[in-house]
Amino acid sequence: MNKVYLIGIGPGDPDYLTVQAINTMRKIDVFFLLEKEGEGCKDFLKMRKKVLERYLESGKYRIVVARIPKRKKGGNPYVEEIKVWRQETAAVIAGLIKNEMKEGENGALLVWGDPSLYDGHLEMLQHILKGGAINFEYEAIPGITSIQVLAAKHKIPLNRIGESIVITTGRKLKEYSTDEVTNVIVLLDSYSAFKRFQDTNIDIYWGSYLGTEDEILISGKLKDVIDDIKKLKSEAKKKKGWLMDTYILRRSNKKSV
Amino acid sequence: MNKVYLIGIGPGDPDYLTVQAINTMRKIDVFFLLEKEGEGCKDFLKMRKKVLERYLESGKYRIVVARIPKRKKGGNPYVEEIKVWRQETAAVIAGLIKNEMKEGENGALLVWGDPSLYDGHLEMLQHILKGGAINFEYEAIPGITSIQVLAAKHKIPLNRIGESIVITTGRKLKEYSTDEVTNVIVLLDSYSAFKRFQDTNIDIYWGSYLGTEDEILISGKLKDVIDDIKKLKSEAKKKKGWLMDTYILRRSNKKSV
Repeated sequence: MNKVYLIGIGPGDPDYLTVQAINTMRKIDVFFLLEKEGEGCKDFLKMRKKVLERYLESGKYRIVVARIPKRKKGGNPYVEEIKVWRQETAAVIAGLIKNEMKEGENGALLVWGDPSLYDGHLEMLQHILKGGAINFEYEAIPGITSIQVLAAKHKIPLNRIGESIVITTGRKLKEYSTDEVTNVIVLLDSYSAFKRFQDTNIDIYWGSYLGTEDEILISGKLKDVIDDIKKLKSEAKKKKGWLMDTYILRRSNKKSV
Repeated sequence: MNKVYLIGIGPGDPDYLTVQAINTMRKIDVFFLLEKEGEGCKDFLKMRKKVLERYLESGKYRIVVARIPKRKKGGNPYVEEIKVWRQETAAVIAGLIKNEMKEGENGALLVWGDPSLYDGHLEMLQHILKGGAINFEYEAIPGITSIQVLAAKHKIPLNRIGESIVITTGRKLKEYSTDEVTNVIVLLDSYSAFKRFQDTNIDIYWGSYLGTEDEILISGKLKDVIDDIKKLKSEAKKKKGWLMDTYILRRSNKKSV
């Protein structure tokens, strides 16, 4: 039977790949690289190819680049909008598995970060299998997330002794009151949702393009660094055409040690 | 100046090491392996040595095994208890850095999972530096966490579309009501704290000894599998002398895709 691997490749630097990911890549016959529209996606495609070139012998594998549909924004509620987009993307992936894999081959998708964190590939494969038109095995290979790189670069733990951690999106951050911010990690924030805490005593540990040569890190009292972050975000976005940032909001506390 | 690296080695299988972790290990002069009392710690020590032997040439590095104090339980409130224990452990680490590293050398501690997640090494190094008696540089190298392996093995994402994720401890789980359990990941639970949700409609994805040959995985409606988990936990603990488990509690939901 064909097998499809979702391989987590970490957030940018090929050094973040695990030995498991590399060993898995070495048994792959065909890599499916999905291409969205937009500046960022060209860079992401380039970075995926760099990972393949770094660890694999050329000529030993095939690459199929496929265009996936753009998400239609604004029509449906957010969850519905993503669902529709995932179904359309799943149809593209199903086509790749059906048409580009020979009997008994291994295929793979290289997943940014880790396939378990804010990523739809696992559910898309399950959706395809449920449809029943094609059959295959699949497996997920963990990868380092931008959250872990953010913490390592800022030299902070994600939590202090015994504390809980929340991971959420820019969109959901509005559901948390100031009192609830002990350790809140925010991903997928195109709104600079941290702005609503600018008058509080909360600290921020912010990072963008983590693990790449363009990496930017800022930390401090949110109220002291918020203007720097806003300025850097807008400059970087202008320069590179895209920006992905991750940050931790943390209530100051007595020292843990 | 001396430099101390905290190297995340993942949750068990040496294949989870990243290329960054391996490259860092190759420039280390001395590895400090900390030894606690108890069955589990002998196994952990063995697993750390296995990682070194797998990736490094013998004779190219030194190993110093140091006994760290046992945590004194029950006297202080939990956070205080951990603080005191960390300070005592930090004193041991400070002694190792002072006495076992020559000028300009690189030292390392191999950290289970990732140094940013429920781990005290970063704060211990910062505590030592703040004391001012010795000086050194330090850096954290991310590693795959048991959470990521748990999700990969169960083939589930940690969150469905747009949902938040909570990471907490067995001790803190009691602060969450059934309604608040969307995706709650629990670590460090020696109490089987999931028991309080046994009459709810919550799903559990449970795993122990993740990434090792003894790995156990169970998933399903909590009410259906809770007896199996309790039985397996008690059997495994008897057999191996220790048990570390990780699990995700999740409210059933409409399908994401």
